[in-house]
Amino acid sequence: MPELRQDPVSGRWVIFSPARAARPSDFAAAPPPPAAGSCPFCPGAEAETPPEILALRPAGSPPDSPGWTLRVVPNRYPALLRAGEPGAGVEGLYRCMDGVGAHEVIIESPAHERGLAALPPAQVAAVLAACRRRIADLGADPRLRYVLIFKNHGAAAGASLAHPHAQLLATPLVPRQVEEELDGARRHYEDARRCVFCDVVAQETGPDGGRRLVSADAGFAALVPYAARFPYETWILPRAHASAFERGDAAQDAALAEVLGGTLRRLERALPGLAYNLVLHTAPCRAPALEHYHWHVEILPRLAGLAGFEWGSGFCINPVLPEDAAAALRAAEV
Amino acid sequence: MPELRQDPVSGRWVIFSPARAARPSDFAAAPPPPAAGSCPFCPGAEAETPPEILALRPAGSPPDSPGWTLRVVPNRYPALLRAGEPGAGVEGLYRCMDGVGAHEVIIESPAHERGLAALPPAQVAAVLAACRRRIADLGADPRLRYVLIFKNHGAAAGASLAHPHAQLLATPLVPRQVEEELDGARRHYEDARRCVFCDVVAQETGPDGGRRLVSADAGFAALVPYAARFPYETWILPRAHASAFERGDAAQDAALAEVLGGTLRRLERALPGLAYNLVLHTAPCRAPALEHYHWHVEILPRLAGLAGFEWGSGFCINPVLPEDAAAALRAAEV
Repeated sequence: MPELRQDPVSGRWVIFSPARAARPSDFAAAPPPPAAGSCPFCPGAEAETPPEILALRPAGSPPDSPGWTLRVVPNRYPALLRAGEPGAGVEGLYRCMDGVGAHEVIIESPAHERGLAALPPAQVAAVLAACRRRIADLGADPRLRYVLIFKNHGAAAGASLAHPHAQLLATPLVPRQVEEELDGARRHYEDARRCVFCDVVAQETGPDGGRRLVSADAGFAALVPYAARFPYETWILPRAHASAFERGDAAQDAALAEVLGGTLRRLERALPGLAYNLVLHTAPCRAPALEHYHWHVEILPRLAGLAGFEWGSGFCINPVLPEDAAAALRAAEV
Repeated sequence: MPELRQDPVSGRWVIFSPARAARPSDFAAAPPPPAAGSCPFCPGAEAETPPEILALRPAGSPPDSPGWTLRVVPNRYPALLRAGEPGAGVEGLYRCMDGVGAHEVIIESPAHERGLAALPPAQVAAVLAACRRRIADLGADPRLRYVLIFKNHGAAAGASLAHPHAQLLATPLVPRQVEEELDGARRHYEDARRCVFCDVVAQETGPDGGRRLVSADAGFAALVPYAARFPYETWILPRAHASAFERGDAAQDAALAEVLGGTLRRLERALPGLAYNLVLHTAPCRAPALEHYHWHVEILPRLAGLAGFEWGSGFCINPVLPEDAAAALRAAEV
């Protein structure tokens, strides 16, 4: 059973998942890419994943058979397991918790070579709809506090399989980065009676804004945040206030698919071969509609030569001003 | 001038340092290693660094000439600059600060090929003494709030030059990770009237401890922390309570040099070719002796196949239990 442990000094929680690796020799080098034809996410290899949770497939076709256009399956090496109650433990000074949760894979399409940026908008919208369904389903489980959707694209971003996929991690705790956002947003709301994300969107799309804006349409703003941690970091925010992504509808999926695809294509044009992490930040499970919080997507490019500095220095050091990154991305429209 | 910017949601500060890189093409690949003989940190290349701040060299030899056994020089591509007053600015919602600080390089020895783990203990002690001198010197500058010593070893850890060196970053703010530690340690002290780090050392070296201990001698304990973020993460803590590393003496340098060298040799034996980040956590500049804080060294291995997960998931996911990592390191004594 995986286990969560809390650092007694900083309070941060870490997931220990011995199923995901074992001996020192496992770390000697990056895992080799699977040989052509051996991808477990390709059509025909359905038996190589655990049984599917959700799929888009022709009416009447049996589960775990070919013909699908999108599959959601449990991660074969799950960081957390949906079993038992999240019991807590103590060892002297220390606190731990059973690793109850879920770890799923969203296989974005049958096409092995076609990344999210290259999928048709309707297929990206189908991926977003599947994410909303999985968050809503898992969010009803009272043992779970948060459902995080993320994507590691490229080996430098931690992807171990090339076939385009996103991941879902449902956790018995709210991730620290989201908790910090929720706390900061709550403080801003208490001061100003306004959502801080709405204020950011208003400033960046307003008459004095624009320098950090990548694109804006009726539904969404894509922008490089004022204090971007990474060069070309880009956030996509809905212009209308909403705290929970999963309460959106098909119109939201269609509109977000357009801007997400367009933003990824700009990034790939400006930075060929780009690796990135993408994270969806939404409200915690079962939270009511929150006046102070605002769901959004964060795209975090992982560029050569920058790894490690943030751990070493305790600060993110970003050599590219957000205004310069945004200008390059505006010019990189595809 | 570099600039610090604060994210209006989370409150985190980011250093913007345009001197450190420029256009997208700079990120196309990792920087090539310098050709043999062209290392700016090797003897004979003293003119390729800014003028030295501190050096160990034969009496009477001129600054920036060969013959030294250790040099401290300003970073040629500084993330922060020691110039002007740290003025604050506002842009609508956002807050920024001038990037006043210092960024220095501690060249650990003249030997290009000899890492910290392979240096004689007396040379490691000289590196530690130089760090103490620089922290004490910069700590007297009222514009600076923190002096962070860190080391990136290996390309996977962000090192761009192979010649063994540490770095010093003096900042007008306390780094967030240190601030979180200070806050957590203060809370524990208020509850328990004891230092949480002293409690950790007592538990890990006590009659029921030992499972996460790598080594312990009269002066120091080396251990894998209970909630290690990374496989084989190892902390070195002085057994006697002390909040500021830089107030130590030559005896401290000698004792820490032994355990630091020994720990790095164990790590390299268990994980050949290891890349790591090393960070020294000490009290903020001009803090009095703190009852609740305890300086220590953190060694953060950067192992293949794990990059990105922490950004993507919002959690560190560690596949190796601290007890297993500690057992492997105990067995890897060199």
